Amino acid sequence: MFTLTHTDGAARRGVLQTAHGAIETPVFMPVGTQGAVKALTTQHLDEIGASIILGNTYHLMLRPGDDLIARRGGLHKFIGWNKPILTDSGGYQVFSLAERRKINENGVEFRSHLDGSPYLLTPERAVDIQANLGADIAMVLDECPALPSTAEVIEASLELTFRWARRCRVQFLKKKGPDPVPQQQFGIVQGGTFLELRRKSAELTVSIGFEGYAIGGLSVGEPSETMYEVVSQTTSCLPANQPRYLMGVGTPLDIIEAVARGVDMFDCVLPTRNARNGQLLTSEGAINIKNAQYAEDDGPADPACGCYTCSNFSRAYLRHLYMAGEMTGGTLNTLHNLSFYLDTMRRIREAISFGRFEEFRQGFHQTFTRRALIS
Amino acid sequence: MFTLTHTDGAARRGVLQTAHGAIETPVFMPVGTQGAVKALTTQHLDEIGASIILGNTYHLMLRPGDDLIARRGGLHKFIGWNKPILTDSGGYQVFSLAERRKINENGVEFRSHLDGSPYLLTPERAVDIQANLGADIAMVLDECPALPSTAEVIEASLELTFRWARRCRVQFLKKKGPDPVPQQQFGIVQGGTFLELRRKSAELTVSIGFEGYAIGGLSVGEPSETMYEVVSQTTSCLPANQPRYLMGVGTPLDIIEAVARGVDMFDCVLPTRNARNGQLLTSEGAINIKNAQYAEDDGPADPACGCYTCSNFSRAYLRHLYMAGEMTGGTLNTLHNLSFYLDTMRRIREAISFGRFEEFRQGFHQTFTRRALIS
Repeated sequence: MFTLTHTDGAARRGVLQTAHGAIETPVFMPVGTQGAVKALTTQHLDEIGASIILGNTYHLMLRPGDDLIARRGGLHKFIGWNKPILTDSGGYQVFSLAERRKINENGVEFRSHLDGSPYLLTPERAVDIQANLGADIAMVLDECPALPSTAEVIEASLELTFRWARRCRVQFLKKKGPDPVPQQQFGIVQGGTFLELRRKSAELTVSIGFEGYAIGGLSVGEPSETMYEVVSQTTSCLPANQPRYLMGVGTPLDIIEAVARGVDMFDCVLPTRNARNGQLLTSEGAINIKNAQYAEDDGPADPACGCYTCSNFSRAYLRHLYMAGEMTGGTLNTLHNLSFYLDTMRRIREAISFGRFEEFRQGFHQTFTRRALIS
Repeated sequence: MFTLTHTDGAARRGVLQTAHGAIETPVFMPVGTQGAVKALTTQHLDEIGASIILGNTYHLMLRPGDDLIARRGGLHKFIGWNKPILTDSGGYQVFSLAERRKINENGVEFRSHLDGSPYLLTPERAVDIQANLGADIAMVLDECPALPSTAEVIEASLELTFRWARRCRVQFLKKKGPDPVPQQQFGIVQGGTFLELRRKSAELTVSIGFEGYAIGGLSVGEPSETMYEVVSQTTSCLPANQPRYLMGVGTPLDIIEAVARGVDMFDCVLPTRNARNGQLLTSEGAINIKNAQYAEDDGPADPACGCYTCSNFSRAYLRHLYMAGEMTGGTLNTLHNLSFYLDTMRRIREAISFGRFEEFRQGFHQTFTRRALIS
């Protein structure tokens, strides 16, 4: 279901077929945590050219509940979005948000951060929930150990993740429907920042056989150079003809560096969360719209951008909306930041097609500084 | 600049020309308090067919400041809205929001509710601020006495309002530009719930001569029947060939009753504020989307509505967004409630054209209940 159409060094351009249409890669997936990309409607997502969004299993299983969503006909129908959706397994947020976690071989028991009610998330249950949601791409349940940890802890964790992945695949194959383009399931490579453990995790995960492979456990505080090394190591251990997804990454520069190392798919809350906090991405780096210097700035957020926000509104107006606490500011800022990300991905794909990715990468580094970026 | 095209009993249909285009009346003006209709973009306003919006002088003079907006080319340019804007005089919010008010013949001194800084709002300054904002329709500064008050207090207040109105008109005529369709200025009739004082205030205000007349000081807690009586009394004292604006009103039923008494223009925060609080207007009355009964309701907010929200999303989804605190819910609810208001106004205008307003009014009363409406 994945076709590579161009390569340029390690960078790849391709097309991933899903039950809800094709995705051009490298792709950025806006995060629709609780069934909505915060501050936007699905019309906005269409207008800025989002081709796939991400939903968070942890949030949706708690509220409104995956059974309720299944009774509504699945997540696409429920949220009014007819393009592809990838859902995570819930694992990452169980480990970062839930209360009183108890992890054992079977799975993870936890209490909801919303009302304290008890839940059990097993590999099988993670598959079932994502089947209820009707995700086009489902992720296996993995353990996300806190970093830094010793090699022993990380190795034990990736072995547990491997056993869970095997159980997820068994459950997935049991449920797999007869659709011509059925749900796809991606495995997740863990291993912390230990290159040998990344290799081991990749080999174990690939041995199970998935439609795609994710790289988990990165962008959790390690230096960028370390992350890039781990990404290089991991992609070199993954099948060339299948999609690779770097989970939760990242800044525009991180995405470009990961594309340079053979990654195809990305998600991150940075463009949406930072938008609501008044940080706007521009071709020359990030700006904080609340700064007084923008109070009388009649220029657009990014002079190089043609999005709705930049075509119609000034920095002065965006600053005013931010200072006044107007929700409209959150919407306009989010539209711009996501447009910036999606435009960057379009430029990446185009550069790869023309064999000019390295040139694009150098140019981007020269003009985009990470000075003000809150990642 | 105002042309009556149809009358049906006391109800009127007309067209008001402004510097930014024509408005069909009766019209509802969504409230864009601080330079944005909360949770919407101007694209949304275009899509739902808003023909004029309201801006609040009090909020804008404090933040970002009317001088700053004037330097940006005026409010239309600043907020990216090319259709008409009406601004209030700031008076109402000085009386309801500002701190340490001191009122005297000259005007009103107050301190900003934002940072305590001192301001002086005089009739002349209210005119100047609205000129800075570049409003198509500007309002005179009026005093808004607390209700209930004695007839003596109300009479003294309407006399002050009259003297202020005269000063506003002098200042307005001084500044009036050479535009073929320049800014218009509306006087405001006060007088509380005393019918004779309403008559006196109307006569005094009309004696000055404005492009239109507003009815102020209603919908502040008095019974609906009292408000309707005051509206009838006031419109009967106003020139037939000029627009009449009932400030801050109201519920859909109040609007229909006021149209039946000859009012042409309305504004109210109800549809937008209630939307953010989860109250949705439907042809059969208001519903509170947070109620558990909507958790699995796959129908649209209002089966009789064709707005973006009702065409694409279920009550179950809107309830989920509300419960999850997603801003997208505020946007979708606001789009629906304003569409409901604007559609109701379109139906009112059509009914008047066909001489069927009374039929429409009766039908609306029969199907729309005020049961759950938070006004």
